[in-house]
Amino acid sequence: MQKKTLIQSIPNFSEGRDLKKVEHIVDAFRGIPGLRLLDYSSDPDHNRSVAVVVGEPQAMKAAMVDAIGRSIDLIDMNMHEGKHPRIGCVDVIPFIPVRGASLQDADLLAKEVAQCASEKYNFPFYLYEASASAPHRASLSGIREGQYEGLAKKMKDPLWRPDYGPAAPHPTGGAAAIGARMPIVYYNINLDTSNLETARSIARRIRGSDGGYRFVKAMGIVPEGRTNAQVSVNLTDYSRTSLYTVFETVRMEAARYGARVTSSEVVGYLPLQALVDSAEYYLQLEDFSTDQILEYDIWNREDDDR
Amino acid sequence: MQKKTLIQSIPNFSEGRDLKKVEHIVDAFRGIPGLRLLDYSSDPDHNRSVAVVVGEPQAMKAAMVDAIGRSIDLIDMNMHEGKHPRIGCVDVIPFIPVRGASLQDADLLAKEVAQCASEKYNFPFYLYEASASAPHRASLSGIREGQYEGLAKKMKDPLWRPDYGPAAPHPTGGAAAIGARMPIVYYNINLDTSNLETARSIARRIRGSDGGYRFVKAMGIVPEGRTNAQVSVNLTDYSRTSLYTVFETVRMEAARYGARVTSSEVVGYLPLQALVDSAEYYLQLEDFSTDQILEYDIWNREDDDR
Repeated sequence: MQKKTLIQSIPNFSEGRDLKKVEHIVDAFRGIPGLRLLDYSSDPDHNRSVAVVVGEPQAMKAAMVDAIGRSIDLIDMNMHEGKHPRIGCVDVIPFIPVRGASLQDADLLAKEVAQCASEKYNFPFYLYEASASAPHRASLSGIREGQYEGLAKKMKDPLWRPDYGPAAPHPTGGAAAIGARMPIVYYNINLDTSNLETARSIARRIRGSDGGYRFVKAMGIVPEGRTNAQVSVNLTDYSRTSLYTVFETVRMEAARYGARVTSSEVVGYLPLQALVDSAEYYLQLEDFSTDQILEYDIWNREDDDR
Repeated sequence: MQKKTLIQSIPNFSEGRDLKKVEHIVDAFRGIPGLRLLDYSSDPDHNRSVAVVVGEPQAMKAAMVDAIGRSIDLIDMNMHEGKHPRIGCVDVIPFIPVRGASLQDADLLAKEVAQCASEKYNFPFYLYEASASAPHRASLSGIREGQYEGLAKKMKDPLWRPDYGPAAPHPTGGAAAIGARMPIVYYNINLDTSNLETARSIARRIRGSDGGYRFVKAMGIVPEGRTNAQVSVNLTDYSRTSLYTVFETVRMEAARYGARVTSSEVVGYLPLQALVDSAEYYLQLEDFSTDQILEYDIWNREDDDR
């Protein structure tokens, strides 16, 4: 039984106004067997577009190298202005394991794409996130510091020599960050208080940067359209810190303020395994496998008959 | 965005010894676009085979009518003996909604198959389960009472006139039960006691037949290979009585005996929605949809591009 390997990518391009150019770039992802363009959108204020693509690694590699080339041809960073920090015509390319693929598989793919595109276009790439070649380069904000305009100077610093390609920005394309990461889960937990400080205190206790869970970012907010305080969370590795762990910890921390959790929300996609991990915890499930999910097993078998 | 409608069927045939005949019957499900033969197995003691098929309704209908015809051609019930109660060469055909389909859709399909096959082969069908035309005919055991040998006499009784086809058994094929039902979830809850009576008492309190949940069958056992008592449950409509409801109720009932739940197990397939329903309960999730499950959404979109 062949299981399809699926990796997702969410490339960001520095064009959000000339939609014909955007069409030509995302066209690289259409009509490719084993690859699917799920979505794309453009923001004219940011002057930036984001595409969501998913597919088998080899199909993804070829299409991404093509898309990178198209963005280099079409976008002149010397003309680029927009509200979003950026270093290149294709600014960041994350690879995210979806199914039958590990973080290591996504990392390998990121490096293959960088190797191939850097040679083909003489274009510099920085490995980031789980692929980063040094700790100070893991975070995107560090790589983006100085933006496109500051690249020439930055690249003279040995600490900021690109991982692939020339040690100088592409004359019109700049540079790109590329690497593997786990899917981010955007998870909000609503409290029965309107006290923003309560949510902020709880957020400080659970986020890694302040001594909480390593793979949790969090902040306290009162969201638009609501009157209650909310702990807004990014789970940067749901396989190591689960939804239920964050939920139960927030509940525990909220109790000291006399506050309760009223509800929670997942915004956007949730990996199936994340749902299973939480159900397994609460139902104390033994030996449960995603293959037991009827639709999932059917999907896995699509290419063969019994 | 086209969503595939998927219905599952688990036809049972009264042949479990002559494997060439079984092959010829299940061959009706192979090589059909929109249909997939997931599995099949034969039991020589029961002299019975079971196939698991899933697919789009129209593909399922044509293949099932074909398979019914093949079983009529190959199996002579006058020669049939085996340890499992049966009324016909194709003994029972349940249709089960899997995705993008409701119980009503499965019911319509069951009736279309019965209509078509009864006319084509002059073969009688009894609607059962959710499709039953009267309450006393919903249960399979009622329909099977008297077995193949008692059919001629049974069909003279107005209460047991078949829903489709002649009011007499097919001379070599007998009759079949056909209808729609929800997927059954096989769910076991392990206790930290070896006291069988405890598990039996809890089972009596939760099962519909003794005043518990309508869509729950349950019994107390000490399973082979374990030393602890277990409440063994069939959820006959997980969309109305969830895993978490049964789990929490067993936990609550066990407390009076000083017993605790140590773990639970799902045996076989679990519909995705059943998992979601339980996760939603424990995480107090607002507005969560199965479309948010990354793999599920990709699967739904397989036939188109953005």
